[in-house]
Amino acid sequence: MYPKADVVAPAVTAVFTAVLTEGPLSRVRLARRLGLSSAAVTKAARPLIEMGYLHELAATERTGPGAGRPASPLAVRADREFFVGVKITADELIGVVCDLCAQVRTAIHRPLTDPDVEAVLTELGHLVDELLDSPGGYRARTRRLGLAVSGDVDPTTGLVRYSPFLRWHNVPLRERAEKLTGLTVTVENDVKALTTAEHWFGEGVGAESFALVTVGTGIGCGLVIGGRLVSGSHGVAGEIGHIGIDANGPTCHCGGRGCVEAIAGTDAIVGQARQRSGRPELTFDEAVDLARRGDERVGAVFARAGNAIGCGIAAVANLVGPARIVVSGEGLAAYDLFETHIRAGFERQAFGAAAECPLSIRPLPFEEWARGAATVSIQALVAS
Amino acid sequence: MYPKADVVAPAVTAVFTAVLTEGPLSRVRLARRLGLSSAAVTKAARPLIEMGYLHELAATERTGPGAGRPASPLAVRADREFFVGVKITADELIGVVCDLCAQVRTAIHRPLTDPDVEAVLTELGHLVDELLDSPGGYRARTRRLGLAVSGDVDPTTGLVRYSPFLRWHNVPLRERAEKLTGLTVTVENDVKALTTAEHWFGEGVGAESFALVTVGTGIGCGLVIGGRLVSGSHGVAGEIGHIGIDANGPTCHCGGRGCVEAIAGTDAIVGQARQRSGRPELTFDEAVDLARRGDERVGAVFARAGNAIGCGIAAVANLVGPARIVVSGEGLAAYDLFETHIRAGFERQAFGAAAECPLSIRPLPFEEWARGAATVSIQALVAS
Repeated sequence: MYPKADVVAPAVTAVFTAVLTEGPLSRVRLARRLGLSSAAVTKAARPLIEMGYLHELAATERTGPGAGRPASPLAVRADREFFVGVKITADELIGVVCDLCAQVRTAIHRPLTDPDVEAVLTELGHLVDELLDSPGGYRARTRRLGLAVSGDVDPTTGLVRYSPFLRWHNVPLRERAEKLTGLTVTVENDVKALTTAEHWFGEGVGAESFALVTVGTGIGCGLVIGGRLVSGSHGVAGEIGHIGIDANGPTCHCGGRGCVEAIAGTDAIVGQARQRSGRPELTFDEAVDLARRGDERVGAVFARAGNAIGCGIAAVANLVGPARIVVSGEGLAAYDLFETHIRAGFERQAFGAAAECPLSIRPLPFEEWARGAATVSIQALVAS
Repeated sequence: MYPKADVVAPAVTAVFTAVLTEGPLSRVRLARRLGLSSAAVTKAARPLIEMGYLHELAATERTGPGAGRPASPLAVRADREFFVGVKITADELIGVVCDLCAQVRTAIHRPLTDPDVEAVLTELGHLVDELLDSPGGYRARTRRLGLAVSGDVDPTTGLVRYSPFLRWHNVPLRERAEKLTGLTVTVENDVKALTTAEHWFGEGVGAESFALVTVGTGIGCGLVIGGRLVSGSHGVAGEIGHIGIDANGPTCHCGGRGCVEAIAGTDAIVGQARQRSGRPELTFDEAVDLARRGDERVGAVFARAGNAIGCGIAAVANLVGPARIVVSGEGLAAYDLFETHIRAGFERQAFGAAAECPLSIRPLPFEEWARGAATVSIQALVAS
């Protein structure tokens, strides 16, 4: 609760973070931006330049107006180091190699037939090898691997406490993956990893507060407040999917009633669409197809789901007032069916000026989750 | 979004805050607590001792086990300075004088007949004089006045942008009150002021995150996350009263549907109780009385209201995961009717470990709001 007054100046980390997320930046602008003296910036930048992470652009390499004085801005050497990121789901591994600026250099999907820990680790080993040996020569300059898993994850120990979709309990994933690959491993909850990527390299750059809502089988939310990812004192945060928005709504698997996820999660939508259409074998994709072709009964299921999501997002805006909110996730492949209803639910329920919070509603390219995992390992490098 | 690396060490503020909220503390414990060197603590404490805000306890004045080494702990001189706090409502002013430790030394209520700005300012001037001239000799050692008002308040300019209950628009309250009283004035939203008091001097002491929910005519929430009061990027935060928890519930004055406040605010309860009892003149106190005497129809209104509040509190726990939550406010004078239902709604809707968040449900002594206002002015002193 106190203003921080650290003994060890975190100036190196601050300079690295600023150049990485907002660079190129001149030393003068860095000093102003970070509240440091010019001498402190110069001192902090020196080891980063010596290690090859930053370099000075020639004065002619200005990147446009507002990019600072022409006096040699500092920029990141994106290919100084590479990072592997893997999202582990119950039926596939999605892996990427990113550079230091979190640009995806290569991506590979690998189907899983068995979510058993040993089977997944074997496949993970193969995937990492395949990524590092792909054209681009990444192996020599890769030391870190980021893993993202849905569920209850302890990033400080790398333990997956519980992942419902994988049916994992207390898996020491970091330890196992480090032994397997020889890389330094970070493990994070998938929604938090994605939020980190958006905060450092996406729409959240520079925002004091920011929320990312993911729509799919689960409905989750990552929150950044005061520049930091909110993790929750009791290990729970961002559970927008379990806000109760309909006192007479369906019972949720969590035991709650009328949860956003019980109305708008993929399974809930499929269940409702089957009931409304009278087709007990209907898949999600077929439901999307029916709704797009004008089936009113199935269209109403998506409308209700969109409204529920919008109402949940309004709760986020009313409570914490983020500067902006991104709504994404695999469920938004059908965002044409959702978008108006999400916005309508949000606008109805957002209180006063909370309605001014901009919403970006967009589908999520498949490799973004894995990029999120890689971003967490970039962050670990910067903090080290 | 960067780790803070301030040029000016905020060590004086950090030391003052720590001793004020958690003292007495020895220099050794302060150093450890704040991540400062012993020399830095000694240097930071010196001006505070010279100005008379802190003093050294004799080694014998230990306040018990765990109060640190016997080597002269630092403590606050509570009577070094006094602070006036006033909560302005539409029908009364509640004023207190607090000492530096936010202990209430004297309190006065003053009825208002007219919420017009000029009328309120006149009464405010009288109230402040009465407080400062009351036995205790506060005037000579009082330089600051804190004001708390419900509604949309800008604490940086002291402007009350909009207060619905007072029907005020864009009132430059700080400027007016400073001219009127000659004191240095702070203006804050009443719920935020109360949260500040609880965070610095109440159940929130030492908590990284903390929420205060107030129940009454309005239903509000103050949030502390990462040690800081959340204010919302668009000026809105903590609006738990406008979370929609019943998709088919009553329309709210805000335009939303099934808002917590539209079910559990005092007016909503009175309206429902009148309808259920068939007594169109019923007051809130009479409704409480009927429910306490076992009237099932009116009892059900309180049950539904308590459930709605619990559901809203669960949304807070699910989204931001505070270390603890205090539920209070004038509406909780009837907390015997609410408590079980608040807890039931919370437990049903809290997700997983979020249910571990402790809830303190208790009524609010009338002068607490005014003490909150005074606390904001204490905080302004400490930051200066």
